[in-house]
Amino acid sequence: MDLLAKFREIQEKQKSYQYVLNIIGWDSATEAPGAAFPRRAKMLQFVTGELFKLGVNEEYQQAVYGLFEQLDTLEDSVQREIKKAKKALDKLTKIPENEFVEYQTLVGLSQRLWEEAKEKNDWDMFKGNLEKLVDYNRKFITYFDTDKEAYDVLLDDYEEGMDMFKYDKFFNTLKKDLVPFVRKVLKEGKPLDKDFTLDFFEANKQKEFCEYLIDVLDFDRTKGLMKESVHPFTWNTHPSDVRFTTRYLENFVFSSIFAAIHELGHATYEQQIDEKWNETGLSGGTSMGIHESQSRFYENVIGRSREFWEVHYPAFKELFPEQLKDVTLDDFHRATNKVEASFVRVEADELTYPLHIMLRYEIERMLFSNEIEVDDLPRVWSEKMVEYLGIEPKDYADGVLQDVHWSAGLFGYFPTYALGSAYAAQFYYTMMKEIDIDELVRTNKIKDINKWLKEKIHQFGSSKNPEELLVDITGEKFNPKYYVKYLIEKYTKLYL
Amino acid sequence: MDLLAKFREIQEKQKSYQYVLNIIGWDSATEAPGAAFPRRAKMLQFVTGELFKLGVNEEYQQAVYGLFEQLDTLEDSVQREIKKAKKALDKLTKIPENEFVEYQTLVGLSQRLWEEAKEKNDWDMFKGNLEKLVDYNRKFITYFDTDKEAYDVLLDDYEEGMDMFKYDKFFNTLKKDLVPFVRKVLKEGKPLDKDFTLDFFEANKQKEFCEYLIDVLDFDRTKGLMKESVHPFTWNTHPSDVRFTTRYLENFVFSSIFAAIHELGHATYEQQIDEKWNETGLSGGTSMGIHESQSRFYENVIGRSREFWEVHYPAFKELFPEQLKDVTLDDFHRATNKVEASFVRVEADELTYPLHIMLRYEIERMLFSNEIEVDDLPRVWSEKMVEYLGIEPKDYADGVLQDVHWSAGLFGYFPTYALGSAYAAQFYYTMMKEIDIDELVRTNKIKDINKWLKEKIHQFGSSKNPEELLVDITGEKFNPKYYVKYLIEKYTKLYL
Repeated sequence: MDLLAKFREIQEKQKSYQYVLNIIGWDSATEAPGAAFPRRAKMLQFVTGELFKLGVNEEYQQAVYGLFEQLDTLEDSVQREIKKAKKALDKLTKIPENEFVEYQTLVGLSQRLWEEAKEKNDWDMFKGNLEKLVDYNRKFITYFDTDKEAYDVLLDDYEEGMDMFKYDKFFNTLKKDLVPFVRKVLKEGKPLDKDFTLDFFEANKQKEFCEYLIDVLDFDRTKGLMKESVHPFTWNTHPSDVRFTTRYLENFVFSSIFAAIHELGHATYEQQIDEKWNETGLSGGTSMGIHESQSRFYENVIGRSREFWEVHYPAFKELFPEQLKDVTLDDFHRATNKVEASFVRVEADELTYPLHIMLRYEIERMLFSNEIEVDDLPRVWSEKMVEYLGIEPKDYADGVLQDVHWSAGLFGYFPTYALGSAYAAQFYYTMMKEIDIDELVRTNKIKDINKWLKEKIHQFGSSKNPEELLVDITGEKFNPKYYVKYLIEKYTKLYL
Repeated sequence: MDLLAKFREIQEKQKSYQYVLNIIGWDSATEAPGAAFPRRAKMLQFVTGELFKLGVNEEYQQAVYGLFEQLDTLEDSVQREIKKAKKALDKLTKIPENEFVEYQTLVGLSQRLWEEAKEKNDWDMFKGNLEKLVDYNRKFITYFDTDKEAYDVLLDDYEEGMDMFKYDKFFNTLKKDLVPFVRKVLKEGKPLDKDFTLDFFEANKQKEFCEYLIDVLDFDRTKGLMKESVHPFTWNTHPSDVRFTTRYLENFVFSSIFAAIHELGHATYEQQIDEKWNETGLSGGTSMGIHESQSRFYENVIGRSREFWEVHYPAFKELFPEQLKDVTLDDFHRATNKVEASFVRVEADELTYPLHIMLRYEIERMLFSNEIEVDDLPRVWSEKMVEYLGIEPKDYADGVLQDVHWSAGLFGYFPTYALGSAYAAQFYYTMMKEIDIDELVRTNKIKDINKWLKEKIHQFGSSKNPEELLVDITGEKFNPKYYVKYLIEKYTKLYL
């Protein structure tokens, strides 16, 4: 059997195992009863073990490394696949097995420890584990055959093609142009007239409205569904089965609405990918950043626009006449775009959000360049919060302990969140030249927006990398100026 | 490695695959979007193939047949396991592979064909497939090394220890004592005063009431949940994860209530099995009949009792004050026990239900004794409907085509439904001597009933067979007189 056929055969088996594990993951996150988990862990050991074996066995290694040797004889998309497969294989085979297992165990323990430390606001409890997590990551990078800087390796892991050089340029632009603007809005911006957002909104009716919204946004219900979970997320096994969740907080109605629209953005991306990529290693969205660009586009550009609420505020008000009796469309629209300096990233608004990310990027960058150590984190965190947002966290839980990511060993991941919004803005200005977004939203023709995104971005799955998408669509590589322009235009209009 | 260790090792792998397939089955039945199924079928081929291989491979055969040779050296429960494993293995290995595959394909096609034939009320469309299904089953039995009659082999498949001799005795008792009683009730019974049961009852509130009921019945929500599906069913992977469904028909409120209680009966059985059996081949309820005895007990003995509605009718009425404004507790209780001669088994009431089963048993018995052929079925069906219930079906869809079972190759399965109710009655009279069921229901202490059932029946899983349970609990083997006694007592009080 030739190498490519062998590669495909093993890949198909891997996909089968991943498929069943994915379904079980969805069940775990959305409905499995609490007592079911010990049995589940035991039952999944065998299947995850089989999957792991398929990913490292000799036949597979021969196929991948063999194909990598003859890369230029393969067609473009297969080349891309083999490069990705080799990268994943390197990671599994170059790290000594005992260290790999130790690290997995450390991650498991650290996540539980982090939860406890956050709850108890106890930095000392967690910092020892964080040091170990950083050390393992520093060490693992030395095993890979690379002349890149450590943090560059991590950045590229979460966003193909990105490195410190590019991110520095991005965040320096934000620091120069956005930080002063944010300061101005916070200081001089017109305050909101009314705050109804923390009033009581019944969960059942919130659900009814979210169901209404996913039809408005033309989500294909024959190929997916919306459910509920503590932390909203999107899940998919194939374009024909894409699901997402939201959550209903009765004292913060915007949580369900904007989580639903955000996740629907991720889900629409996955639904619109050409199914043919599922027979290859190029299935699914192409990167964290591009994925986030889609969710942020739906959430912020569509979902927080005046045009959107012109059409849909009446339906919302009909469900909650009491709570909204004195709230005009303008009040409501401005409330969806409320700006404030806050401590917690996940609660931050669109305008201040990238500054939370910038802070994390700079800290990780220094950590992996050995300019600071884990011990310095709380101090550096506070200094940067004061510098960018003018506020100083009073405790660790709202500061350095707030995010789960580091406890899970995810370093280099945060910047993709801000990058996503910046990609979205760059796409947005091209899109505006080709279709009239405001008018399509106002006339309830989101279908045409979905169509544009499918044609330009979604259909390609992972067969184009982020830079290829940017260049093909906007005619230039990543350029942060669009993001700053978008934010300043939007929030000047709203606040100044 | 010794044979038992090898057997356990392979069994554990089989359990792992069954586990993941079970979870996916639950997803398929309760929420997967329609478009997901082609991909699902493709992805599951590999895993089901691996599971099949584990069930027939040489190592496993050596372990099972080897252990079977030395059966008397093993402890009792292991003996029982090995006998079950051998029986299953015989079935997989003695049928030639090509015939096995042909039969599986035939079953798949026949189920779809049956659906269409039923919808079109077209017997001729389906009967050819039914003939083939019967022929395959007749032929397969000849491959097993047995001197039993064909139908006895099938009966024992679905209910260990049962055969025509025992079922004949059972159904002859019903024919002699129950048929005349049913005729009398249908002719002379006091009619119901009001029929509110087909009025409109909002689905959301039905759900609220069903959620209330599962707490009343003390279902352990940390180890399970209730969901919705077109056909109610119970599902489990382990006592720590047992789920069931009901359905909400807005024009037949009893459907959701009694399906929920019925399935909860199955589910409580599974939840209360000792977890230790899950490390063996003796996990899960011991037989179809015993399982049905539990669901029928909860549904009919508890759920349709006057005591039950004395306590819970007020809560129900509070949800539906308009629909129930003229309905007294007595009206309501009698309505839950409405008796009528009807064509369709799944809609039949508790009293007439066993006559529907008797008809099917007699037909299957004649079919597998070659006394009739498939061509005769519609005629025989009509004759027996007239004889037992005094009504003659006007079309096939409400007659011989009504059930899915035969299209799925399930012959010998139906009688377990009636047997379940009969087992339940036999347990009931013993139970009444030990605990005061009426009083426990009236004082809302279902917990104590669950406890009795756990101690006497549930905890044992499949480690005792039906006859052992009956003898250990009631002091005698299966005796149909209790069932007739129970029905005549109950319905005399209600109707005569």
